[in-house]
Amino acid sequence: MKTINLQEKHAQFNKHWHPHQIAVVNDMQVLLAKLKGEFVWHSHKHEDELFQVIKGTLYMQFRNRTEVVKEGEIIVVPKGVEHCPMTKNEEEVHILLFEKSTTAHTGDVTHDLTQTTYPKI
Amino acid sequence: MKTINLQEKHAQFNKHWHPHQIAVVNDMQVLLAKLKGEFVWHSHKHEDELFQVIKGTLYMQFRNRTEVVKEGEIIVVPKGVEHCPMTKNEEEVHILLFEKSTTAHTGDVTHDLTQTTYPKI
Repeated sequence: MKTINLQEKHAQFNKHWHPHQIAVVNDMQVLLAKLKGEFVWHSHKHEDELFQVIKGTLYMQFRNRTEVVKEGEIIVVPKGVEHCPMTKNEEEVHILLFEKSTTAHTGDVTHDLTQTTYPKI
Repeated sequence: MKTINLQEKHAQFNKHWHPHQIAVVNDMQVLLAKLKGEFVWHSHKHEDELFQVIKGTLYMQFRNRTEVVKEGEIIVVPKGVEHCPMTKNEEEVHILLFEKSTTAHTGDVTHDLTQTTYPKI
């Protein structure tokens, strides 16, 4: 029941594509992440996932198009839909994620970037 | 799978304490609301609720203290905890809410401000 400042939390880590958990709401969690470059193509069979851009511009690639998501904007990726988040021009993008506590980082894909647990900050 | 701009959505309604639904994520929903003045003391027996301040300063009153929540900050009100959101100095505050689709607006309390459904925008 304490106020959480997103900027202060983002300042606590630097690694890209490495979400940190800042809160739990029912059976979902709130994660923060810093993104740079391209992630991994994947999907979550049973879970929707919400991305909110806090700083910078996120390019959410789908197989047939790309959505541009800027600061103050959100996008919901529905379950089963393949996606691959990306940033451009070496920009570091800060995001907030809202997803089920059971959602696997890279879906069924295993990759060097795959994380199985998220540090709490 | 479309980008949603929070400011544009907030511009689509004016009524205070009257949440509008902008997205669904699993069994939870994303609501936007404009707040001014004081709401109603209530709690949600089975559901946590997340508040994110998009503009202005929110005062989240609990029975024994008040948390100040500013732009770029969030607060999670756990299930069962009595709370009453408030704004000060005639300021209109814009917030985003994450909550279960089943969460009642004013919990067990019925009030003139109680809404049973949220318009989708």
